[in-house]
Amino acid sequence: MQERVNVAVDAMGGDNAPGQIVKGAVLAINERKDIKVFLVGKKEAINTELAAYTYDKEQIEVINADDIITNDEAPVMAIRRKKESSIVIALNLVKEGIADAFVSAGSTGAILVGGQFIIGRIKGVERPPLAPLIPTTKGVSLLIDCGANVDARSSHLIQFAKMGSIYMENIIGIKNPRVAIVNIGAEEEKGNTLVKETYPLLKNCKDINFIGSIEARDIPSGFADVIVCEAFVGNVILKLYEGLSTTLIGEIKRGLMSTLKSKIGAALSKPALKATLKDFDATKYGGAPLLGLNGLVVKTHGSAKSVEVKNSIIQCTTFKEQRINEKIKENIMKIE
Amino acid sequence: MQERVNVAVDAMGGDNAPGQIVKGAVLAINERKDIKVFLVGKKEAINTELAAYTYDKEQIEVINADDIITNDEAPVMAIRRKKESSIVIALNLVKEGIADAFVSAGSTGAILVGGQFIIGRIKGVERPPLAPLIPTTKGVSLLIDCGANVDARSSHLIQFAKMGSIYMENIIGIKNPRVAIVNIGAEEEKGNTLVKETYPLLKNCKDINFIGSIEARDIPSGFADVIVCEAFVGNVILKLYEGLSTTLIGEIKRGLMSTLKSKIGAALSKPALKATLKDFDATKYGGAPLLGLNGLVVKTHGSAKSVEVKNSIIQCTTFKEQRINEKIKENIMKIE
Repeated sequence: MQERVNVAVDAMGGDNAPGQIVKGAVLAINERKDIKVFLVGKKEAINTELAAYTYDKEQIEVINADDIITNDEAPVMAIRRKKESSIVIALNLVKEGIADAFVSAGSTGAILVGGQFIIGRIKGVERPPLAPLIPTTKGVSLLIDCGANVDARSSHLIQFAKMGSIYMENIIGIKNPRVAIVNIGAEEEKGNTLVKETYPLLKNCKDINFIGSIEARDIPSGFADVIVCEAFVGNVILKLYEGLSTTLIGEIKRGLMSTLKSKIGAALSKPALKATLKDFDATKYGGAPLLGLNGLVVKTHGSAKSVEVKNSIIQCTTFKEQRINEKIKENIMKIE
Repeated sequence: MQERVNVAVDAMGGDNAPGQIVKGAVLAINERKDIKVFLVGKKEAINTELAAYTYDKEQIEVINADDIITNDEAPVMAIRRKKESSIVIALNLVKEGIADAFVSAGSTGAILVGGQFIIGRIKGVERPPLAPLIPTTKGVSLLIDCGANVDARSSHLIQFAKMGSIYMENIIGIKNPRVAIVNIGAEEEKGNTLVKETYPLLKNCKDINFIGSIEARDIPSGFADVIVCEAFVGNVILKLYEGLSTTLIGEIKRGLMSTLKSKIGAALSKPALKATLKDFDATKYGGAPLLGLNGLVVKTHGSAKSVEVKNSIIQCTTFKEQRINEKIKENIMKIE
């Protein structure tokens, strides 16, 4: 029998928990025989949801957790105090080697803090970046870092570039991924202190394909595969991406519904429009990995529905198969 | 006779110079008798363009400038060396009091450097921010700073908040404009060092309506009128706004053109769609002012066409009428 990938899933995290999370877990194991899911959370609530589905009972195990960490709680405090929360219990499954990976749609802050405190960093990794995929007209780009580690140093950004390259090459399958640093102009001398310091160091990295600066306007057209920036800027890019897409699509819908003629036009063009906009969507790739930990932690959208949860769980198998953490370890050791 | 507002216009700046710039100037003076434009640039080229129009000769004066500063040149060097460039000559008109304002679609860097070097800052203003208006579903918001002054201090951000409030109240006509600081979470304790330092200072400002943090996802919905950030982050927001809007609208057009049915639908819905997207467009307000100088400097898009140039020129009259610089002076003096 082939070896299973064991994924601990936070059944209580996100806006649609536990319903959509449990459904996503069932979809994942029904699609892949090589996955076992530990559903962590309030046992009764999870079992009620599970009762609606048919699935191989060997592939799902429910682990009780009485507590929940909410988005409003201060992450460090919550991780320290709520030992019985689904996040802490699930992370401990990874720490103990029972699970290979952890997937959650819950509090980003708690997941980031918990990942570092409980699972711990790979030796040599200074900061584990949160690296979501964002949609572009050419496919997807990895935006690294969007986490809570603000005020980064250039040595962190170099590691982000290396870890991001490994991820894009091995998980997304892009050969020799193009790495660029977010900047306010294309020239080497442009930028703030951090970027000016980091640019020549990236240029000297032999094991990445550094193509220079990227201005924010060139991100949506897929100018680079790995987009390196410190977390504050990355967070702004990620959230503006989401906010502006939603707003523009909303405005277009409003326009289409504004007159009788346009309503008829909208009805005719809807299927084609839907297909195009579906291309411009990164959720099919799963959630955002927190790279550089002794185990995989994947953060999915707070609003994730079952399909995104399923994709996030399946993503964990590629991560294990491709030995991403071993590759990061080798790479980080090399630079030390 | 009423007093005229004298505007020096860089006839050679931008992708569409001198044709669209000259046309914009003619449109402006034909709409408003109280404006005089100094068209600065290569005299022959300007006169050739002007020959196509009918206008009051008293309202346009051509000032020759043999040189042009391009976007590729290092701004400080260019401003120092190219004394005969349209930007330097036009800025000197403002410095000497011949012109009240300067409008250019040319090199942002050169305009920012030239504005500070030649016209100079209002006493007490530490850094003059470049503050474009960005479209939102509620109208427009002022994004301040998007200039070249990276690595800002909190005292700069406080001044940006004050200058931005004065601008939005007096030029755009928003009473008691809501001021927010760009952050990676809504809570006061969130953010990088600069934001954490600035937040309580903004909270203590009596003369602005500070509403707290703004996450980038809430910018497009018009959550705040004055959006305060340091220039690197502002630049990223501005350029991503432009790039993502262009990309998404392009994707939607592609979708609409992808099948025969959708093409018919597109033809029917086009007028309504166009009207909606026009609402989501800030160019009608003119260009981005560089605030805090002893005179007004307005940067319009490099790709600006005549209507945007016209609006940028007309914008200068409101700036003068509303005595923005006097208001900034009073306000900055007060905090010292």
